[in-house]
Amino acid sequence: MVRVPYTELLAAFQRALLLNGMAPDRALHCATIFAETTRDGITSHGINRFPRFIQGIHNGSVQPNAEPTCTAAFGSIERWNGNLGPGPLNAHACTVRAIQLARQHGIGCVALRNTNHWMRGGSYGWQAADANMFALCWTNTLPNLPAWGASAPVVGNNPLVIAIPRPAPATAGPAPHVVLDMAMSQFSYGALSNYAKRGEPLPLDGGFDKDGNITRDAAAIYESMRPLAIGYWKGSGLSLVLDMLAAMLSGGRATHEMPNDIARESNISQVFLVIDPTNLAPAAELNQIADAILDDLHQAPRADPAKAIRYPGEQALTLREENLRMGVPVDEDMWKEVTALAK
Amino acid sequence: MVRVPYTELLAAFQRALLLNGMAPDRALHCATIFAETTRDGITSHGINRFPRFIQGIHNGSVQPNAEPTCTAAFGSIERWNGNLGPGPLNAHACTVRAIQLARQHGIGCVALRNTNHWMRGGSYGWQAADANMFALCWTNTLPNLPAWGASAPVVGNNPLVIAIPRPAPATAGPAPHVVLDMAMSQFSYGALSNYAKRGEPLPLDGGFDKDGNITRDAAAIYESMRPLAIGYWKGSGLSLVLDMLAAMLSGGRATHEMPNDIARESNISQVFLVIDPTNLAPAAELNQIADAILDDLHQAPRADPAKAIRYPGEQALTLREENLRMGVPVDEDMWKEVTALAK
Repeated sequence: MVRVPYTELLAAFQRALLLNGMAPDRALHCATIFAETTRDGITSHGINRFPRFIQGIHNGSVQPNAEPTCTAAFGSIERWNGNLGPGPLNAHACTVRAIQLARQHGIGCVALRNTNHWMRGGSYGWQAADANMFALCWTNTLPNLPAWGASAPVVGNNPLVIAIPRPAPATAGPAPHVVLDMAMSQFSYGALSNYAKRGEPLPLDGGFDKDGNITRDAAAIYESMRPLAIGYWKGSGLSLVLDMLAAMLSGGRATHEMPNDIARESNISQVFLVIDPTNLAPAAELNQIADAILDDLHQAPRADPAKAIRYPGEQALTLREENLRMGVPVDEDMWKEVTALAK
Repeated sequence: MVRVPYTELLAAFQRALLLNGMAPDRALHCATIFAETTRDGITSHGINRFPRFIQGIHNGSVQPNAEPTCTAAFGSIERWNGNLGPGPLNAHACTVRAIQLARQHGIGCVALRNTNHWMRGGSYGWQAADANMFALCWTNTLPNLPAWGASAPVVGNNPLVIAIPRPAPATAGPAPHVVLDMAMSQFSYGALSNYAKRGEPLPLDGGFDKDGNITRDAAAIYESMRPLAIGYWKGSGLSLVLDMLAAMLSGGRATHEMPNDIARESNISQVFLVIDPTNLAPAAELNQIADAILDDLHQAPRADPAKAIRYPGEQALTLREENLRMGVPVDEDMWKEVTALAK
């Protein structure tokens, strides 16, 4: 692990994107999303995904300069075509549009088809919350989880993001929004791989071995391709309905239509649903309700007195401040790979 | 277990509600929701909840003739006050209103405060789907799950309902909608109690014992009051944000403000969000996407060749047909209790 100054990380992403044919303003924007995700500690969907993103440009999955277009609209809901543009730029643009629709109609929803991996889904939750909006966003993915009762991947891990806006502190600094960003798998393939490499058991049951026994053996789960959905049958069902909503509302591809090959995952479908509370209630009322809920959570009796109880996204701002001050921690080999792409 | 004809079940609920002061048209409607829930096999939120519902009328939690009122409106979103009316009637009325708003604006959302337990949340998903709408609905509850890292109940099991409309078959009969209806707890207190009574271990880890060890011992979990959320930290986070959304959007009570006493759970908050796809795409396109997803699910390789893979809600119509034909199966003591209330 090395710590790289934020500006240096951003510049490397930007230069690599320029070298791969992305227009300058888009390269800066896309690089910023990768850099901010890494800065907030989500390296798995920041720097660690960057070489695969460049590979997507090379193999034609990602069209670096394609922009999304609106194909149908009615009141507070619209359908957009991502035209295979970069997932993070498409997702950002659709969130901007959903925010506009919410200002106008109270709620705004953009269903997006033919897009690519949005990297950290939480990015778009933070974006909506910065505009003082609630957001529910989700994406489908290639099949990477067995449905409950199936012995092979059928449903996606379909990350779901829910964001609650919080006011910025009276002193300077970013607003501590509550942002849930969760995949439907109990452990990601990345996490399984890390446990397997270290030869460590998972802290909890994480999937089935090839004989169908529930196990904490990460290597066995990796081999069987049968990781568990959260809540067993429940997460399996939730994943299925999120896929149905995304594909049906957008008119785009469903999980079963995607190749089971992460390098060629493309043409995915996403939903960005934003709610503007401005005209329902004064901000002070909303903030008071949220303060009371979070205070109660923080004051709950702890299972381990040394471990604070946290809300979703609570660690992001602490990590952000630390990483901006001390440099952003990245894997040394990955940093070499990214700097090589930027040369 | 006895089988009771559907009409007899409905008549008993109706008479008991009339005897407890509910106006005739409302008593028929409320009885129908209880009877239909029981008919579809969800006895836990049908007949088995009925005596507690009547108790709620007696202790003042439920005002049998109170109707919900709109307190704020902007475009596609409205705030309603449930005025402590019967949960099922309030939820039904708010779903009707959300459907109207969705017809007008593409999306309709009603945030409802000061209401009571909606019984089977899926009822309102089926209702919206019958109007050819997608629905996302959720409710908060009293604190009955430890947040991740807490040793006592802090968050609610906050059921979430997601409904996908499906066309009715060309021959007669109800439409086989996809309706997910899931609480954030892995096992309900009812299920824990049943396993404990039978002295059987849970099929999977279901909570912590009083020493903080994860266990399948239902009695130990019942005693510790530390059941698991689905997906451990994930379901805990999802439960928290659903509570925040419900309380903030409605201006109503959050989980932490409710007494930890199921007999006095009241003034809860709910959200009914409905999406009308009519103006985005022809029904044939939507149905084709859904058919392909469900066909793929049904054709997936089975973990157990004898066990079909099912989508959420798939069993409801089979059970409904069987129970209408053979009588609705109910617990004998519970049926005695309900018939006594109807005398």
